[in-house]
Amino acid sequence: MKFEVTILGSSSATPVHNRNPTAQLLNCNEKFYLIDCAEGTQQQLIKFNLKASKIDYIFISHLHGDHYFGLIGLLSSMHLNGRIKPLYIYGPAALQEILELQFKHSDTHLKYELVYFYTDTTQSAIIFQNNDVTVETIILNHRIPCTGFKFTEKKRLRKLLIDKLEQDNVPIELYPLLKRGVDLDLPNGDVIRNLDYTTDSAEPKSYAYCSDTLFDERYFESIKDCDTLYHEATFLHEMLERAKETHHTTALQAAEIAKIVGAKKLLIGHFSSRYKTLSELLDEAKTVFQKTELAIEGLTFEI
Amino acid sequence: MKFEVTILGSSSATPVHNRNPTAQLLNCNEKFYLIDCAEGTQQQLIKFNLKASKIDYIFISHLHGDHYFGLIGLLSSMHLNGRIKPLYIYGPAALQEILELQFKHSDTHLKYELVYFYTDTTQSAIIFQNNDVTVETIILNHRIPCTGFKFTEKKRLRKLLIDKLEQDNVPIELYPLLKRGVDLDLPNGDVIRNLDYTTDSAEPKSYAYCSDTLFDERYFESIKDCDTLYHEATFLHEMLERAKETHHTTALQAAEIAKIVGAKKLLIGHFSSRYKTLSELLDEAKTVFQKTELAIEGLTFEI
Repeated sequence: MKFEVTILGSSSATPVHNRNPTAQLLNCNEKFYLIDCAEGTQQQLIKFNLKASKIDYIFISHLHGDHYFGLIGLLSSMHLNGRIKPLYIYGPAALQEILELQFKHSDTHLKYELVYFYTDTTQSAIIFQNNDVTVETIILNHRIPCTGFKFTEKKRLRKLLIDKLEQDNVPIELYPLLKRGVDLDLPNGDVIRNLDYTTDSAEPKSYAYCSDTLFDERYFESIKDCDTLYHEATFLHEMLERAKETHHTTALQAAEIAKIVGAKKLLIGHFSSRYKTLSELLDEAKTVFQKTELAIEGLTFEI
Repeated sequence: MKFEVTILGSSSATPVHNRNPTAQLLNCNEKFYLIDCAEGTQQQLIKFNLKASKIDYIFISHLHGDHYFGLIGLLSSMHLNGRIKPLYIYGPAALQEILELQFKHSDTHLKYELVYFYTDTTQSAIIFQNNDVTVETIILNHRIPCTGFKFTEKKRLRKLLIDKLEQDNVPIELYPLLKRGVDLDLPNGDVIRNLDYTTDSAEPKSYAYCSDTLFDERYFESIKDCDTLYHEATFLHEMLERAKETHHTTALQAAEIAKIVGAKKLLIGHFSSRYKTLSELLDEAKTVFQKTELAIEGLTFEI
């Protein structure tokens, strides 16, 4: 099952040459989840040949413009491009007011349904579940209410050992039960032991997305043991005071967090426009957490 | 005096590969006027090395997103980049409500003043004047209230013939009066005839911007004899019915309008995403009005 994230924006606050503000596209079993949606996100999707029409779920962390100013344009284009299936938006309640005001004044009546779920920005909660994935909010500490999102795969069914099943003439009708881990005592006295015919599926993976936040231990429990941690790393650690003032994190701190919570991989992003190149940020993080990568535009990371 | 327009977006409705929705930057005597501001306009300014900080006046034609969704991001970036001088916005009244709602929810308190002027979308009016230019609205016929803008240079002062003035020892203190066209009878009996020492300045030029509209004779008077007419040309004329339905114009109609109003040059833009290449639109317009050019991204046209 595919579980991967494509970076659409790596810049903080303002766009700079070659870097757009934050947006990411998560592909989980060929279902597409957009995480934040800065201005220019629809253009980034076009640039990287990703289809906006495939996105059914959008998660917005908070209402700073570099995380959502592209949403109204994306929704409008979906409408103009003929979308009819519903779209589900998870984010702060005020998002609905902001979007609806703009639809009103452009006399836009969407041909598809927008379904809003308001995130509670005061306590972590499971806000979404389907057969593939569970999404839980992460309560971050930013200048305005802000949640991250942790995507955790559902445990998959057991894998069938088809060759062995066919060799022993196990009836095909029993396969679904075997996938679910059931042992079978047949009426004829045969015993089909699940472990003889199946192997365990891969352990579920998790992706934690921490958009904008101060270093704050209170959210570490929410991202414990995640497989891939995306964490903002707006500044080098020499700018720690500035990071604190603006409720952001340094590259060194992002790496410390990855280490503390036991992440297997760290992606850093949300880089200040002051950095023309990013190698120093990466090097700084790697001094603490070797498995760090830069979450830059166009790259896709397997979770 | 410079009087030129740079195209930042040529697409209608939605962005497509290499084409962004509408925005234009007018330079009149090194003062900068932004006309419409689609999503991605700030990225376009960066791409073409144009400084957002130099823009003091923004004119928004109407509240369809492809003409203003980039405004909130541009204003936010100006704030984050340290702007302190006021910014003047001319557009529909609801624009203020839309912008302020978003500033409120991002807890943004601009370090510069935003000064709003609401355009009357029912009758043409002069909405702006300084030493360089007068701006008058053009009442267009679109699905929602929409105004174009006509920028007309102020008549410049007369040009001094410096060599002749120096040869005849005309006192330098008299130059400003001569520039204003005054004849001088000096106390000593000398007569300084203005026409001997000055020549007329160039005739003022005008630029008419018609963003989104049906072909409608009622606005032709407003754009009569303009030097450069920018007119939307969303479709080829074979799509006339679609143009009417959506309150847009065809390339052929744009050319007819240029001819009827006596424009000296026509720029066409706001192209439907259905057109992968634009040569057919240009060719169609040229059958009626030879001096037509495509208003495409990055090009600068002298008015």
